[in-house]
Amino acid sequence: MEVGFLGLGIMGKAMAANLLRHGFRVTVWNRTLAMLSDPSAALSVVFDKDGVLEQIGEGKGYVDMSTVDAATSCKISEAVKQKGGAFVEAPVSGSKKPAEDGQLVILAAGDKALYDDMVPAFDVLGKKSFFLGEMGNGAKMKLVVNMIMGSMMNAFSEGLCLADKSGLSPQTLLDVLDLGAIANPMFKMKGPSMLQGSYNPAFPLKHQQKDMRLALSLGDENAVSMPVAAASNEAFKKARSLGLGDLDFSAVHEVLKGTGGSG
Amino acid sequence: MEVGFLGLGIMGKAMAANLLRHGFRVTVWNRTLAMLSDPSAALSVVFDKDGVLEQIGEGKGYVDMSTVDAATSCKISEAVKQKGGAFVEAPVSGSKKPAEDGQLVILAAGDKALYDDMVPAFDVLGKKSFFLGEMGNGAKMKLVVNMIMGSMMNAFSEGLCLADKSGLSPQTLLDVLDLGAIANPMFKMKGPSMLQGSYNPAFPLKHQQKDMRLALSLGDENAVSMPVAAASNEAFKKARSLGLGDLDFSAVHEVLKGTGGSG
Amino acid sequence: MEVGFLGLGIMGKAMAANLLRHGFRVTVWNRTLAMLSDPSAALSVVFDKDGVLEQIGEGKGYVDMSTVDAATSCKISEAVKQKGGAFVEAPVSGSKKPAEDGQLVILAAGDKALYDDMVPAFDVLGKKSFFLGEMGNGAKMKLVVNMIMGSMMNAFSEGLCLADKSGLSPQTLLDVLDLGAIANPMFKMKGPSMLQGSYNPAFPLKHQQKDMRLALSLGDENAVSMPVAAASNEAFKKARSLGLGDLDFSAVHEVLKGTGGSG
Amino acid sequence: MEVGFLGLGIMGKAMAANLLRHGFRVTVWNRTLAMLSDPSAALSVVFDKDGVLEQIGEGKGYVDMSTVDAATSCKISEAVKQKGGAFVEAPVSGSKKPAEDGQLVILAAGDKALYDDMVPAFDVLGKKSFFLGEMGNGAKMKLVVNMIMGSMMNAFSEGLCLADKSGLSPQTLLDVLDLGAIANPMFKMKGPSMLQGSYNPAFPLKHQQKDMRLALSLGDENAVSMPVAAASNEAFKKARSLGLGDLDFSAVHEVLKGTGGSG
Repeated sequence: MEVGFLGLGIMGKAMAANLLRHGFRVTVWNRTLAMLSDPSAALSVVFDKDGVLEQIGEGKGYVDMSTVDAATSCKISEAVKQKGGAFVEAPVSGSKKPAEDGQLVILAAGDKALYDDMVPAFDVLGKKSFFLGEMGNGAKMKLVVNMIMGSMMNAFSEGLCLADKSGLSPQTLLDVLDLGAIANPMFKMKGPSMLQGSYNPAFPLKHQQKDMRLALSLGDENAVSMPVAAASNEAFKKARSLGLGDLDFSAVHEVLKGTGGSG
Repeated sequence: MEVGFLGLGIMGKAMAANLLRHGFRVTVWNRTLAMLSDPSAALSVVFDKDGVLEQIGEGKGYVDMSTVDAATSCKISEAVKQKGGAFVEAPVSGSKKPAEDGQLVILAAGDKALYDDMVPAFDVLGKKSFFLGEMGNGAKMKLVVNMIMGSMMNAFSEGLCLADKSGLSPQTLLDVLDLGAIANPMFKMKGPSMLQGSYNPAFPLKHQQKDMRLALSLGDENAVSMPVAAASNEAFKKARSLGLGDLDFSAVHEVLKGTGGSG
Repeated sequence: MEVGFLGLGIMGKAMAANLLRHGFRVTVWNRTLAMLSDPSAALSVVFDKDGVLEQIGEGKGYVDMSTVDAATSCKISEAVKQKGGAFVEAPVSGSKKPAEDGQLVILAAGDKALYDDMVPAFDVLGKKSFFLGEMGNGAKMKLVVNMIMGSMMNAFSEGLCLADKSGLSPQTLLDVLDLGAIANPMFKMKGPSMLQGSYNPAFPLKHQQKDMRLALSLGDENAVSMPVAAASNEAFKKARSLGLGDLDFSAVHEVLKGTGGSG
Repeated sequence: MEVGFLGLGIMGKAMAANLLRHGFRVTVWNRTLAMLSDPSAALSVVFDKDGVLEQIGEGKGYVDMSTVDAATSCKISEAVKQKGGAFVEAPVSGSKKPAEDGQLVILAAGDKALYDDMVPAFDVLGKKSFFLGEMGNGAKMKLVVNMIMGSMMNAFSEGLCLADKSGLSPQTLLDVLDLGAIANPMFKMKGPSMLQGSYNPAFPLKHQQKDMRLALSLGDENAVSMPVAAASNEAFKKARSLGLGDLDFSAVHEVLKGTGGSG
């Protein structure tokens, strides 16, 4: 089976490599997967000159694995369907490392037949794929997961700062956390580098903040009040204002650290 | 070795049972462990008539396993030392289930010699004990851990609400979360009961909110800004104002759920 | 001078009445003022069949006095200019009462010549009009003002609740506030009715929340972290979720009041 | 009438000067007014050696005009009463300028007879005094007012930042605000100096943050959820962590300004 691939950023490179490793021919052909960084990129690759829309048609499918809002996915879906093509949105949960290890979680929605065709590729890219029903549900599920993750990162960073400023060993806090009910891979993976102030971008902060923004917009449409997500989003925006947007999203720790004066 | 035990609430019952099961004689004698619900209870059991202070003396030790602020621990420590006794604060991380299973994490500080004497008892009550140095560090570490936990619970609840109101299956969200980088025992354990609106108190909400308050006070003393913890604390306070303080802390979900109108 | 008027809601009725009272002929003719409730309404009145765009042309002008985002204003501006017309955005600061009294503050931007033509009408509708330069600045200034207002309303409501629950007279709080450095017409006007739980819509809550949302989006574009506005926005969203969106924005007080249990 | 005066800080100097100007003999004699900066100072001046308690007695009164928590006021009240003296707490609303102009608002509670005796002095110090009933109510009312003020300052600063980063003139924003429903003396007085980054301490930020903390504690006791006050408090704490605690409370603007990067 031949698979097209658009977008070779942090995630895309790792994913395309996995497909090649498992004998897929990865070219721009009839099944196209896109891995792009935001709604505008996802739209332009479809609607611009020489874009997907010009190649799509009967019996062809297009799969967008970027994280965009439901409206963007639906807009693409409409256009692809009008040309007789099939469309599946399939954003992924997981960042650079899981992408390299083929351990992503794939959140697919849209055309069920195309989804079924894609399962072999999804099995290479991820440890599990979900078919979530109507177009937009994949995007929505991804946003909900990333919103929780973004708030957890802020809670974690606040805890590391509080430990440090209170005369406790942040390293011991990591050990204690890892033994308890809230132990999770993100704390284990990010904690040590955060303590060193090293933020090599597995998931860029500006993309995390974009997802927080989109999740808050989704909450706004549905009148869901989310004060903790809102506070976390403001911390990520503060990090952007300090020029940290291209670092890993754990760089929000730099915002929370402060200077240790006692005013 | 004989171990005294004060306070037989949710946690204390389970802990005392473990000590008995492992052949400790649990009575009020020279080694006394306290498991109480808040600073005032912890103080009164020491300072009131017929309190610990009247029995403590040379060669006797007192261990307080409640979660109180550092100031309370230090006040007790001073008084016990003046009577010639030894004091260890040893708050625990973990709630009802880990207490029953002897899987608590014990955060001890204060008199190192008494801590060493207590290790056999701690080995029964917990899977690991840390000696954190000077008096008050146990209390502080516990507060930092519970602060992170409380914010995570709010982030989790906001995500469940957003999924539900956005037409996604909250159960599927639990499945997706459990496969990802933020999978943790708390989400796995509390998620299903939260979806059923069942909040059997493993850790009462009013105690979680007390710990958030004490952690924020600790942050205030050290000029640590913690906006996410502050937003979470307000949600727990809202839950208290709705009369949910005696339910499990996951009952904050009732605050966030709202009514689903679209205003 | 003849003035067209679109949109006769709470604000529009009062404004049109003032124009008539001062001898303007108010019909749909060459100068058209629109007073609509949100971006989609503002767009449809221009772009839909029989919309403004079909009537606009050389020597004609269109003034939109609704509160919309800058993008919407700019989109309308482009379309009107292409037809040879002139466009001014002129959102107003002030709600029902100031509209009735001709005491609005008018925040105009766009075509300076058309603005100059409109000054006589603006002098009737408002006590002062500002020309803020390039298209979109009127919308932006309005959003900034309403964002501050929305956060102040939340701060005010929290204070009224705290006074009440703490055994103080909320009425005395109003008297004290009115004598101090933060005395302002909004507290004076809204306070008594809020204490009675009466929220006759001068400025509907759903519109206030829309403005908070748009202001937060503007902040997002410019990487401005606004934690207090974000917290206020979540309270307004909570009010919407409780079905209070059509009441006055001071109805956010119902969200903050809680039930007085002590958990 | 002779009036004693303790504490000659920013406020105290101005207040004592007004009493002298109006023919009061200001010495440490039978009526003592205290103007101190926080609970510990208020307590030590009473309970320490050579403190108020040693001089107080039958027919003597003590008035504390500092802003402290209700518990502190009540503790002082008990001690003074035991010595046969009378006590009034009388915190003031207003900072340096109103203190100089005798335009403070005085929030008294406690001993009604002593309050009545003090009215001539209060009439010199303030434009209005309220008798709020039982001991502690003066402190509580003051905290509620300062909490609202602190949140308003944050809302104002966020608006100034948003205007600036969005290409609007912050000075024009001040002009617009001054014409509208939220116009107030604080915005008028502090706005221009905030735009210049000048924060000459009329009311030190660390004292404003202390009052936010005490107000939030009062809310905690009464299960009042105050998310906007909590977010504002965290901003003031951030300012303290940046070493701005001795500047005017409007210096929280420095925290919100950020760097203007776009991350």
